Amino acid sequence: MRVGVIGGGQLARMLALAAPPLGVEMLALDPAPEACAGAIVPLRQAPFDDLAALHDFAVECEVVTFDFENVSAAGLQELESMRPVRPPARALALTQDRAQEKALFTRLGTAIAPYALITDLETLESARTAVAFPAILKTCRLGYDGKGQARVATPEGLDAAWAALGQVPCVLEQRVRFDRELSLVAVRGADGEMRSYPLVENIHADGILSVTLAPAVVSAALVLQAQSCAQDVADALDYVGVFAIEFFEVEGELLANEIAPRVHNTGHWSIEGAETSQFENHLRAVAGWPLGSTAARGVSCMLNWIGELPDRQRALAVPGLHWHDYGKTARDGRKVGHATITAETVRQLAERLDLAGVALAREAQTQAAQLVLARG
Amino acid sequence: MRVGVIGGGQLARMLALAAPPLGVEMLALDPAPEACAGAIVPLRQAPFDDLAALHDFAVECEVVTFDFENVSAAGLQELESMRPVRPPARALALTQDRAQEKALFTRLGTAIAPYALITDLETLESARTAVAFPAILKTCRLGYDGKGQARVATPEGLDAAWAALGQVPCVLEQRVRFDRELSLVAVRGADGEMRSYPLVENIHADGILSVTLAPAVVSAALVLQAQSCAQDVADALDYVGVFAIEFFEVEGELLANEIAPRVHNTGHWSIEGAETSQFENHLRAVAGWPLGSTAARGVSCMLNWIGELPDRQRALAVPGLHWHDYGKTARDGRKVGHATITAETVRQLAERLDLAGVALAREAQTQAAQLVLARG
Repeated sequence: MRVGVIGGGQLARMLALAAPPLGVEMLALDPAPEACAGAIVPLRQAPFDDLAALHDFAVECEVVTFDFENVSAAGLQELESMRPVRPPARALALTQDRAQEKALFTRLGTAIAPYALITDLETLESARTAVAFPAILKTCRLGYDGKGQARVATPEGLDAAWAALGQVPCVLEQRVRFDRELSLVAVRGADGEMRSYPLVENIHADGILSVTLAPAVVSAALVLQAQSCAQDVADALDYVGVFAIEFFEVEGELLANEIAPRVHNTGHWSIEGAETSQFENHLRAVAGWPLGSTAARGVSCMLNWIGELPDRQRALAVPGLHWHDYGKTARDGRKVGHATITAETVRQLAERLDLAGVALAREAQTQAAQLVLARG
Repeated sequence: MRVGVIGGGQLARMLALAAPPLGVEMLALDPAPEACAGAIVPLRQAPFDDLAALHDFAVECEVVTFDFENVSAAGLQELESMRPVRPPARALALTQDRAQEKALFTRLGTAIAPYALITDLETLESARTAVAFPAILKTCRLGYDGKGQARVATPEGLDAAWAALGQVPCVLEQRVRFDRELSLVAVRGADGEMRSYPLVENIHADGILSVTLAPAVVSAALVLQAQSCAQDVADALDYVGVFAIEFFEVEGELLANEIAPRVHNTGHWSIEGAETSQFENHLRAVAGWPLGSTAARGVSCMLNWIGELPDRQRALAVPGLHWHDYGKTARDGRKVGHATITAETVRQLAERLDLAGVALAREAQTQAAQLVLARG
């Protein structure tokens, strides 16, 4: 089984590490010659919109997948006549466009924050009255990690914000006062079988994921609501592979925020914290094989390393800490690695987080995690 | 940190999978161009006794290690002037020679089965009376997985057995009626810190490991005896890295059988069944970094796949089963993969073993494991 991954970043790299034990051969395609998956699997270098290169790449594979949302959906669609593309190009195309994504949630009856679509001056005007402020303006396409977004405090600020984003199609979302951010990572097999990882709680800093606690301490009702939403989305898209849905919890209810059609940063804890990692399950799904258990093993906290790695030797001395170096050079705002701290109990996790915070000089990050743990 | 591994088999392959998350670059040297670690890391192709090639290989690395006992110890010794060799060549040289190994155990006061060294006709005669029969004749060097061994039922059979083994130096060991086979995998850091995995119970079939149960159900006294033996051996050899000691349990006492100066087949369960795998801990040790926890997570059973793999899709459908394909072609007697079944309780493990035995048509193997589980 040869699986080709379009994109060669850390997600492809972690897929690449899950592949050999399964007997899966992997290769990756990325425009950057230094793409970090290339340390483990053969890397074909080409732009994501180079249709001839995508074609040649697909010829080498039995099935094609991707680790990155900003791949050309049209290009993927062409590959579908040659090879199974999993998840399907249609799922990628939909999630690349916030307007389509919100329309899907609405069609499925999934609660979302109030929003309005802005494509021209007319819709800009109607949005100004349809949505309560403060609000967030987001480009429909090509946004990630807080990029392509602007906060809009008042109706009067909308014009400048839209101008700053280049007057491209945008959605204006009412800012909800959420109690917390949750996400559900799930996987759907080629035969339609569906499995969900536990709902997890996330903390962002500067628009980038900083902490994931798994499992989140939540009511069974919330878990069911999230799982039902994931099931509906996956069925609607005839999805195959791992995906994530991000939610806001507002007064005991979930509002769906967005769908990521790929393995997800809020699922990294599953490498050590679940019976089967999201990376292994994605490969199982795209290969058409049975899925593995998504049950948690104990409790886990994932800490993202943004910009640069903390001291490795100090980190390795922290009990239960699992180190993940992505092999990338340090750069502001870049995800260069993560650590997952596993424990048998919440109490043990809290102790280990304290040790990690001090040892790595990341106390702000681990204290944020402690607040979440203490609430649970 | 660049670590060079002499040997490119499945042990090097599993080390290679543990390397990238730690930020370790690995490369391997093996005479076989198809050596299975080569699917993951760069492979230099050269005979193990090609000193010039070993020298060139060491130049590329910061530290040299090995995955295989039959590497030239003299060659390794030469490399020690260039690069740290971990474990040290001296430890390899000693464990390559059963006579030296037994002398070490004797010097340390470790109980072993009665034995005699045979190097010529004179020692052959004295061995015939010094050791009770039935006995096993083993070549001092180059034996593994039951090769280089002959059973000797009576004193009269000794001459023919020695002739069959080529009249090379041998040890004649009294066959002990052991209650079970146990092993201890341990790791010693560059700073002398020592950690032991739980003692495990092993079942061999046709001289090759078939099943490992981790942890073994044993008394605290036996665990202490095994750990103390491992500590003594590691200190005596100034050891750095992972090693294993195989024991026979005879009427509640341990007899040491042999030392393997490397990551070990009876430690494979640690990938999913321990807080830190033996492969990660070996890399941490040889890199001079802090060691990780060797505590078990639940209970595990490792099943070796000898000759050929069972059906992969059926295997992946077994709950808690973790699949390890070594990427080798099928061949009689060859270790081509393994599976580790993890569970929270012995009872759950027993259920999963039953499912695995039926699904994979390996009932003889899983029933052997069940007998051990039931006894504990």
